[in-house]
This record gives sequence, structure tokens and C-alpha cells, in this order.
Amino acid sequence: MKANRIHNFNPGPAALPLPVLEEIQASFLNFKGSGMSIVEISHRSKDFEAVLNDAVARTKRLLKLDDRFHVIFVQGGATLQFAMIPMNFLADSQSADYVNTGTWSTNAIKEARVLNKPIRVVASSEDRQFTYIPKEIAFNPDAVYAHITSNNTIRGTQWQRFPDTAGVPIVADMSSDFMSRPFDAKSFGLIYAGAQKNIGPAGVTLVVVREDMLKRVPEALPVMLKYTTFTSKNSLYNTPPCFAIYAVQLVLKWIEETVGGLEKMAAVNHTKAERLYRCIDASAGFFRGTADRDSRSQMNVTFRLANEELEKRFLEEAAKNGLGGLKGHRSVGGCRASLYNAVSLEAVDALVVIMKTFAKKNG
Amino acid sequence: MKANRIHNFNPGPAALPLPVLEEIQASFLNFKGSGMSIVEISHRSKDFEAVLNDAVARTKRLLKLDDRFHVIFVQGGATLQFAMIPMNFLADSQSADYVNTGTWSTNAIKEARVLNKPIRVVASSEDRQFTYIPKEIAFNPDAVYAHITSNNTIRGTQWQRFPDTAGVPIVADMSSDFMSRPFDAKSFGLIYAGAQKNIGPAGVTLVVVREDMLKRVPEALPVMLKYTTFTSKNSLYNTPPCFAIYAVQLVLKWIEETVGGLEKMAAVNHTKAERLYRCIDASAGFFRGTADRDSRSQMNVTFRLANEELEKRFLEEAAKNGLGGLKGHRSVGGCRASLYNAVSLEAVDALVVIMKTFAKKNG
Repeated sequence: MKANRIHNFNPGPAALPLPVLEEIQASFLNFKGSGMSIVEISHRSKDFEAVLNDAVARTKRLLKLDDRFHVIFVQGGATLQFAMIPMNFLADSQSADYVNTGTWSTNAIKEARVLNKPIRVVASSEDRQFTYIPKEIAFNPDAVYAHITSNNTIRGTQWQRFPDTAGVPIVADMSSDFMSRPFDAKSFGLIYAGAQKNIGPAGVTLVVVREDMLKRVPEALPVMLKYTTFTSKNSLYNTPPCFAIYAVQLVLKWIEETVGGLEKMAAVNHTKAERLYRCIDASAGFFRGTADRDSRSQMNVTFRLANEELEKRFLEEAAKNGLGGLKGHRSVGGCRASLYNAVSLEAVDALVVIMKTFAKKNG
Repeated sequence: MKANRIHNFNPGPAALPLPVLEEIQASFLNFKGSGMSIVEISHRSKDFEAVLNDAVARTKRLLKLDDRFHVIFVQGGATLQFAMIPMNFLADSQSADYVNTGTWSTNAIKEARVLNKPIRVVASSEDRQFTYIPKEIAFNPDAVYAHITSNNTIRGTQWQRFPDTAGVPIVADMSSDFMSRPFDAKSFGLIYAGAQKNIGPAGVTLVVVREDMLKRVPEALPVMLKYTTFTSKNSLYNTPPCFAIYAVQLVLKWIEETVGGLEKMAAVNHTKAERLYRCIDASAGFFRGTADRDSRSQMNVTFRLANEELEKRFLEEAAKNGLGGLKGHRSVGGCRASLYNAVSLEAVDALVVIMKTFAKKNG
């Protein structure tokens, strides 16, 4: 590969499109003829505002958001969103519904409870180690919102279609599948995504929030913890993470102009996941997928081999062949191939070849 | 200048050392032979942990911090610190002292009050538009901490020496003069600095916190708002802003190894500020410094010309000659030259030449 780059299956921070990296590199000492680096220009300069506004506009176009939706850039990762959501939306007597589909949902629930909010867990897949997405969930009609995690990076599950909440606004942590497929945003009150998987580097969280949700934001919150601070100031109340926003803007441009939009992005992602799951399913049990078939993630393909020793050797063999980031999350072990937007079909094909060869040798 | 770069006097985001920018650029597609960009590697990889640990170690060495001090990297800028400090350190009945020296102190006070903390403003320079640093302040011995803003970017004032608080730990917003000069950290309970002025790009806040202060942190806080989350996990509880931390590490390395430490950094900064103030003071009133002489900042030199029309022409003349970022803050107008660490003596000399020429033509 170019510049001795590897095939990067990291779960996040993760692979970014090479043309994006090359553009950042080429203009790093002098951004748009300003005579300064992108990391040296003012966040209130015309050049940076153009970057920010372009990132917002592309997000709106790609997701087909109507005028009710704001696109803002917040710091602190999804973990800060776990707290900001109940802080902003739940007055003292109010409750929200949460679906627990793994570590990140569990953490979101924990944060709401730390804040003493009487939230309800209306469904959970904890009974079978989070290997599936719950079905037929009874949401409470008086819930202020229904929180879900659209894709679960650790257990390799993903909502194939979003639940019918009977009008309760969905609040979704889409950190690991945001901008990987189109979806109808209308039923969502808030969507948040740490950039470091599908849309950029670590250090910024993209939040889409619907206008009607903002009426719930209380006055007496620290200014950096209020969504209205970001929506009313176009994310420029204080100095935002300029470099990360710039990289996100370039990735969104790549999705829109090079890939050709979210339908096409989803088609590529579907093909990638299909090829890998087919290899797993055709391995006669040498590789075992860990998620239920109807809940399988197209972003994080999790699988096991017969034992940890064999898994270790497989990971070594993959690394030797220029395939990195395939180790499962430290809390569950095993293997995981993260197939985010910037992971190429070529990378997946290379992985499939190594898997087949390894299975033949050791099967 | 190289790559058509300008002399950048921006107040933040601001100039970064050219060798740092060049190193980032050179290794941007393949960091340390990993085959991945710094923005694509895992925050839990050995390569990134080495970056993080080096940034921490250099901060400790440069500031001569003893073992009681933790160095952590937080998101949300100084503005989030305005809230985190009272949230972490003030139990319900407790109070802290604040000194108000300008916009950022005012905002810090506002955030503590939003949280319903009964803090006391023990001194203020608001009576003369924040053009000086208050002297002989009576701090309350029962205050949990005494909050100051070490340098005021908007009004161009700076604490020449830190106040005697009779044992009350100082909590200091050092966003705009951190790592610009040595100081004795012993009397500080917490120091925070948005990176985007003296030590890196926007998107990360370096916090130094003394062990004894951590005992005050309450259990029932959102995890991303507790200092103990960061101190106990070496800033790796969740994905940190990796790129910004990497850039900070390179700037600290530059201060330590290329400049030769904080004494030498301070000497250069002193020379830069001296030359500019001397030019102002020798201009027979053509340029007027806005801060009291004994409170003048070495980081942000603020000055006015006879009228706004003349100021506008001066800024245009400077821009034509490759000097950027000299406009005063939008809230006060006038001119401001920010002389952070990465601004060279050559840049200051170029500014002085333009100022003298402009004064001669228009005086």
C-alpha cells in the first residue's frame, strides 16, 4: 500500500479515507492561502466558518434533515452525551426509556441514574450477553425520549430497523454507525456520534438535535452543558475543536462527492460485511460469529476461534500480513473486524484471504 | 517566509512552532512506522500511550511538579473548567474566593453562581475596565480555593507575581500564559489551560491538579465531569482528543529541547514584549497601551491609535505586510498583538518596523 500503510480494522479511532489524510497533509502549513495552518487560524475567521458551515450543510444534505434539526459540534465524547441528555431533557419528575444493548447503553443508563433521573430500562439483551437486539419493546407513552445505541461495537450487534416508539422521540447513540447508511431522521429527537469511527478523528462529537427538544433545556445549567449554547452560537460559543471539525468536513465531503452519498456508502458497507460474514459462515465452525444473525452489525464483525491460543496466532498471522486492529474488545476477547466507511473492500478481501488460509492450515 | 507563511499574532488558536507543524505533516500518513496516521491509531495503542505519557512527563519536568500533582487532558475548553471546578471542589456549604480581572474571570464567576455555589468576589478591576491587576487582596481563610486568571487576553493584563493567599490553594486559569514562564506550582491546587494559545491546537485543555484537592470530588457527578475519572485512568477513561494531545506533546518537546526550558522561554517572551512596549511608549502617544504599566501582559499587548479609522488603516497596512491577527477583541476594539511562545522575535521586529513606519507617515 501507499506510504507503507496497513489495512486498518481498528474499532475507533479508526481508518480514515486516504484522500482526506492526503489533503490535510498537503495543506497543513498553509490553509487556503491564509499563510497559517488550519490549527493556527482563528475559529472566528471566514476560512474556519466556511469549514464549519460546510460540515453542517453536508450533514443536513446527507441525512435529508429538515429545518427543525440543528447540527452542532460538542466535546467530551459520547460519554459526556450520556449525562448531557438527561440534564437537558429531563425535569425532576420526568422519565425516559432506555434500551440496554451492551456496554455503552449500560453506561448511558448509569449516567442518567447518577443524576438521579428516574429513567426506565424497557428492554435489555443482557440475558444472552448482549448478542442480540431486543424486539417488540413496549415504550412508555409518557417517556420524554427513548434512548437506544444504534450499533454496539463490543458485541457486534446493530439495529436493522429502528423501533416504533409511538411518537416518543428517539435519542440515539450512533457513534459507531453514523453516516454508514441512510435512515429517516424524522422520529429522532437527538442523535449523537463520536467522530472517531465513521466520520473523523477523536476529539469531537457531532450532535443532531430537533428544535422541539430544545424547549426542555433548563436555564440553570453550566453553559458548556446546554445544547442551546451550541445551537444558538453555531458551535462557536467558545473555541471549538477546529482540527477535528475540519477533518469531519473533509470526510463528509468524501462521502458526498467521492462515494456518492449515503445510499452508495451503505451499499459498499453492505458488500464488505456480507463478504466477511459469508467467510465466517462458510468456515464450518472454524470461525464463529458471536451475534445473532438477525442482529449482526455491518460495522463491527465479531467472531471467535476454537480457543484463545488459536485467536492469538490468528491475530499474529493477520498482523504479519499487514492487517491491524483485529483484536476483540478487552472486556470480551476474541476477534473483531471494524468495517467503518473508510475501510476498503480491498482490505476486507485481504482479510478474507488470510482467514481462509489460516482456517485451511489450522482447521 | 517558508511556504508563504505569515507572521501570526492571533489571540488563539494561534501560531505554533514551524518545526512542530512540519513534523506533524511529515508523519501524517504513517505515524512511527505503524502504517497508520496519528488520527487512525488506537488511543490504547503503545504508540499513543507513549505520546500521552511523554506529554505528562514533560509538563511535570517543565513545571518542576512534585509527585502530588496529576497532569490530565480534558475536553470542553476553559469554559467547562469554570463549571467543573466548583462542581468538584465545593460541597453545598462551602465557598471559594474569586478575583475578577476581566471577561474570563467574569465567566468563571458566572458559572459557579449558575451552580448555586456561594462564592465570593474578593477583588475586581472592573472599576477601571479591567486595565489592571488588583493588589493587596484579603482572601478568606475558609475559602476552599482562590480563583484567578493569570493572564487576561482581552484587556492585556497579567499577574506579575501570584498573590499570597495565606494557604488557600490557588486555582488558576492559565489558558493564555501557561508554559510561557516558570512559576512555583506549590501553592496551586489546580491549574488549567486551553491548549490553543501557548501549547497546541484547540480541542484539549491541560489540567494540573494537586492530590489533596481530589478528596473533595463528590461521588455523584457525571463521570466526564469528575477530575478523578481523568486522574485514575491517565486521561484514558474514554477516547481522548488524540491529535490535540499529540500536538501538545510536540510543542512541549520543542519548549524543552529546542528552546531549552521555561527560563529560556520566558527570556525570549520578555524580550519580545519589551521591544513592542518600548515601541508603543516611544511613539509619543501615537500608540497608547491600554493596560497599567505594572499590570502589562507579556502575552497580549493591547494598544489603541487616535481613532478607529486610523486603527483600521493600521491593521490593513500590517496585513499587506504579512502580519495577521492584530485586531483587538470584538468586545473592546483597538489592536492586540499576541506574543505566545511560537511567535518569533523576527515577527515582533517586523511588527515594530511597520508600527514605526505607520506612525511616521500618519503622526
